[in-house]
Amino acid sequence: MTSFGVHDTPMQELFGEAVFAAFDDADVGPDEVEALYFGNAMGGQAENTTHLGPQVATHIGMAGKPVQRFEDACATSANAFKNAVQAVEAGIHDVVLVGGVERCTPETGKDTDEMTRIFASASNRQYEQPTGLTFPGVFALLTKRHMHEYGTTEEQLAHVAVKNHGHGALNPKAHFGKETTVEEALDGPVVADPFRLMDCCPFSDGASAVVVVSDDLADSFDDPVDVSGVGHATDVVPLADKEQVHVTQSARDASAEAYGQADITAEEIDFAEVHDCFTGAEILASEALGLVEDGQGGVAAAEGRTRRDGDIPINASGGLKAKGHPIGATGTAQIVELTEQVRGEAGDHQLDGVERGVAHNLGGDAGTTVVSVLEARP
Amino acid sequence: MTSFGVHDTPMQELFGEAVFAAFDDADVGPDEVEALYFGNAMGGQAENTTHLGPQVATHIGMAGKPVQRFEDACATSANAFKNAVQAVEAGIHDVVLVGGVERCTPETGKDTDEMTRIFASASNRQYEQPTGLTFPGVFALLTKRHMHEYGTTEEQLAHVAVKNHGHGALNPKAHFGKETTVEEALDGPVVADPFRLMDCCPFSDGASAVVVVSDDLADSFDDPVDVSGVGHATDVVPLADKEQVHVTQSARDASAEAYGQADITAEEIDFAEVHDCFTGAEILASEALGLVEDGQGGVAAAEGRTRRDGDIPINASGGLKAKGHPIGATGTAQIVELTEQVRGEAGDHQLDGVERGVAHNLGGDAGTTVVSVLEARP
Repeated sequence: MTSFGVHDTPMQELFGEAVFAAFDDADVGPDEVEALYFGNAMGGQAENTTHLGPQVATHIGMAGKPVQRFEDACATSANAFKNAVQAVEAGIHDVVLVGGVERCTPETGKDTDEMTRIFASASNRQYEQPTGLTFPGVFALLTKRHMHEYGTTEEQLAHVAVKNHGHGALNPKAHFGKETTVEEALDGPVVADPFRLMDCCPFSDGASAVVVVSDDLADSFDDPVDVSGVGHATDVVPLADKEQVHVTQSARDASAEAYGQADITAEEIDFAEVHDCFTGAEILASEALGLVEDGQGGVAAAEGRTRRDGDIPINASGGLKAKGHPIGATGTAQIVELTEQVRGEAGDHQLDGVERGVAHNLGGDAGTTVVSVLEARP
Repeated sequence: MTSFGVHDTPMQELFGEAVFAAFDDADVGPDEVEALYFGNAMGGQAENTTHLGPQVATHIGMAGKPVQRFEDACATSANAFKNAVQAVEAGIHDVVLVGGVERCTPETGKDTDEMTRIFASASNRQYEQPTGLTFPGVFALLTKRHMHEYGTTEEQLAHVAVKNHGHGALNPKAHFGKETTVEEALDGPVVADPFRLMDCCPFSDGASAVVVVSDDLADSFDDPVDVSGVGHATDVVPLADKEQVHVTQSARDASAEAYGQADITAEEIDFAEVHDCFTGAEILASEALGLVEDGQGGVAAAEGRTRRDGDIPINASGGLKAKGHPIGATGTAQIVELTEQVRGEAGDHQLDGVERGVAHNLGGDAGTTVVSVLEARP
């Protein structure tokens, strides 16, 4: 993956930077790769760029090969990853490239107001957008319900921000390298009650890519990591149609599918990268994935259980909160992080002795969730 | 498929209209369908609507199921179809829904100037958009080169328009029901030399959907049609990087792949639906697919060989030119047309005795092409 932050290069060049690193890591070139599963969420609106697949394929030497662009809001490249893994497992391809790219900063020519409106395109057009609801508001509603049900507090939310900024400070590719404190977080300006500034992830530019190969070929590559499960589910939109908004049902369905494929329970997971677009989203995800009990997400964060030295480390990379959130790149970046952690190659933010991780990538009003389990190859 | 034209309903309702017709035809409901492969190209830019997959899934009763949105410019839903067929053939799913929807008319709130700029997002951002190139210009460049190489004439282009308007007048779902003449076409205002008004397809609203089932299950459905080949290739962008722009290499690569899978030659094809976004594009496609010899596309049109009563009927539906072109719906609409023709259910525009058809759906600067062969099930 590239560093996440602000990039002034066109999207195909930014994507190329991640791809060439993935090619180097896997010791393959474009000729050996059979297809590209590509994610980009907002390029049409942000930079009037669609049909980006063949453009990036041209840049990375894969023109001619089949390329498909996926867009599933913030779950864009996780869905590309799911489709790629399915295709390889089913024997459609043996070696494929998966990745995503996004530019969300003013480098696009769009300011934060405009990008906020663009991001809101992933909510419901008929019932949500006309109310002025944007994504801080969407996740504020989910989190408020969680606070109502379980007594989750703003201070517990702040602990998530402090943890992820602390983690991000160890990750040289993170958008934010600075730490924060509970006091600073609780003193920030309100964005959408209960979220203050430090509860919200940034708009970032960045790209990520991975090479997926068949089980038969894996041992001919250096240090392969097993994809033991990928689950994918959707949920009703708009929010008003959901039975219980804080439950994030699609995450429960997707993780049940992924754990079933991997033949594991949540207790057997060593660490997680979850979609913490807002601090509250991490709390909901930690419960939906079964990493902590329902209602305990905020408590676990405040107790330090989800810190890198806790019993179930979450977002050792810094997460979306500190590592950054270039929409279409986020899903595959989680896969990169899991791969490096399982290999023991995560540098300063390496966790001790982790062999199995789970990635949770969510799109829109929790309308799409993809959950992936990666583990050391036996 | 819905009628193509102007629709004032939200995209999920428009898509639902096509889906419910497909469900009725296949005698299935949302519970029996395992996944949705969904296409929409420009909803983000046209109506600030992205992450549309779960929204349409909610509307059609498929919330919860895996949904993926594809976007590959004008080849959007053909690529969704390719991925769906691959998934079913590989045993990933047994019954899937594939389709697409688009709104391109002023019903979106965007006028023709704005939509032209939005469509241009599928060309190259760095080298083409800054020159003011929009899609009439892109295909004018390809066609001009063909005229230079082979002496193709504006009158031959006009014959394509006359033919497709004549065909569309027989199709009650076509955007345009009116016929035209060579004289009227040659007398129209110039859009992008050599194209005049009648050489250009319209901006349309519409939706289309098909149910794809495994070979093992097919005989339990009424009147199934075989998908005997689906090819998919990309080509370099921008245009300036192509060796010969009039050759449309991706169509040649994709058709070779599709014909190989179907174990046929071009001579064994009874009829074709090709991507005639402009009259010149049909001429290029007819050659790239091997339906006529290179250089003979214009001649064949003028001689009536590609008319519904000719030896190789092209675009009996009216094509994009007269049936209309709701971007993300066009690819699957071609599959609907092939299915109905092969079944003998195409009504007033039914061709005589056709058993095998080919569909050609192109995206962007011919950067993506998907070619599908459908035929009567033995």
